[in-house]
Amino acid sequence: MKLYDCATAPSPRRVRIFLAEKGIVVPTVQVDLRNGEQFTPAFRAVNPDATVPVLQLDDGTRIADAIGICVYFEASQRDPPLMGNDARSRALITAAQRRAERDGFYAVMEALRNATPGLKGRALPGPDDYEQIPALAERGRARVARFFAALDEELAGREFLCGERYSIADITALVAIDFAKWIKLGVPESCMHLRRWYDAVASRPSAKA
Amino acid sequence: MKLYDCATAPSPRRVRIFLAEKGIVVPTVQVDLRNGEQFTPAFRAVNPDATVPVLQLDDGTRIADAIGICVYFEASQRDPPLMGNDARSRALITAAQRRAERDGFYAVMEALRNATPGLKGRALPGPDDYEQIPALAERGRARVARFFAALDEELAGREFLCGERYSIADITALVAIDFAKWIKLGVPESCMHLRRWYDAVASRPSAKA
Repeated sequence: MKLYDCATAPSPRRVRIFLAEKGIVVPTVQVDLRNGEQFTPAFRAVNPDATVPVLQLDDGTRIADAIGICVYFEASQRDPPLMGNDARSRALITAAQRRAERDGFYAVMEALRNATPGLKGRALPGPDDYEQIPALAERGRARVARFFAALDEELAGREFLCGERYSIADITALVAIDFAKWIKLGVPESCMHLRRWYDAVASRPSAKA
Repeated sequence: MKLYDCATAPSPRRVRIFLAEKGIVVPTVQVDLRNGEQFTPAFRAVNPDATVPVLQLDDGTRIADAIGICVYFEASQRDPPLMGNDARSRALITAAQRRAERDGFYAVMEALRNATPGLKGRALPGPDDYEQIPALAERGRARVARFFAALDEELAGREFLCGERYSIADITALVAIDFAKWIKLGVPESCMHLRRWYDAVASRPSAKA
């Protein structure tokens, strides 16, 4: 088994934190995204989508999606559960993870990819080239600000995003917030609950992954 | 238990098909999206995000996300499995579902919401108003065309998106393709494999849900 990874990229970091929380070690192959290694024929043979992370199983099966990979490890090694332990908690964690991804992670990505000079023509990850849309970068920044405010409100009465237990929803939100630093957006001082939560999750050993 | 639904909307249709495949019947409450019922204080008290579907459990818990709701029912009633039955198939189905959602369902939504006159100022679902971005509508249409071509290629050697078994990935792809009719994009004649698959999944009784 091996994980195609890129140590500096936020998307595979979600998997790395997930694995660190479970105490699972998987050999990694570093893919040099900065120099376009994802577009080489060699890597396109691994993942035609030209993205990381990709988990390759011993039978050759490849899972080319961060959450798909987490699902694999959650099903293979239950403890500690990071995606819920009954129908209700699984459903709530799934919903919260997707929300943090849509309103946080993807909003940051939109803002970054549609404004960074080095990403001209690369407004979306993947094999196809799309031109940057400046209005989308602007919208992305507005959405990130709302994401911070919404998270702050949610965390007012809770230790973690889905209650008393750390979950994959916290991982996505943490990675989204650190990703937002790339576009120079930080959690406002006024978001006390979010800051308290961030300090807690960012100081877990897994956050270094 | 009850499901806040809108019989004409594609997002809750994913849940309705999922339930029909499992043979589960849940009482529904219809929310009149066309007349803005999702923005009323009464519905905002149910879901501050102002979207359907929402599943309300008997203990009052609300799950306000289509895939989160499917996870709930998959965990409550395993048969027939629509999200995989071991670590490998769960991971692959998760990845395929997310891909169909991102490249198909969301691309259609982008194209529709950024171009429809009646949706001015409503370029994203949810509580916040965002202006339409015409370039994003155009990009959405280009992405849908690529989605059709990619699906066609994938289905060349397979009965369903994840092999021999119908799954939630097929549901998302089917709903995305029907949703594309709203923006007048249909599967090209040349996409033989995709057309064969579409005929098969669209003629299952669940597709009427």
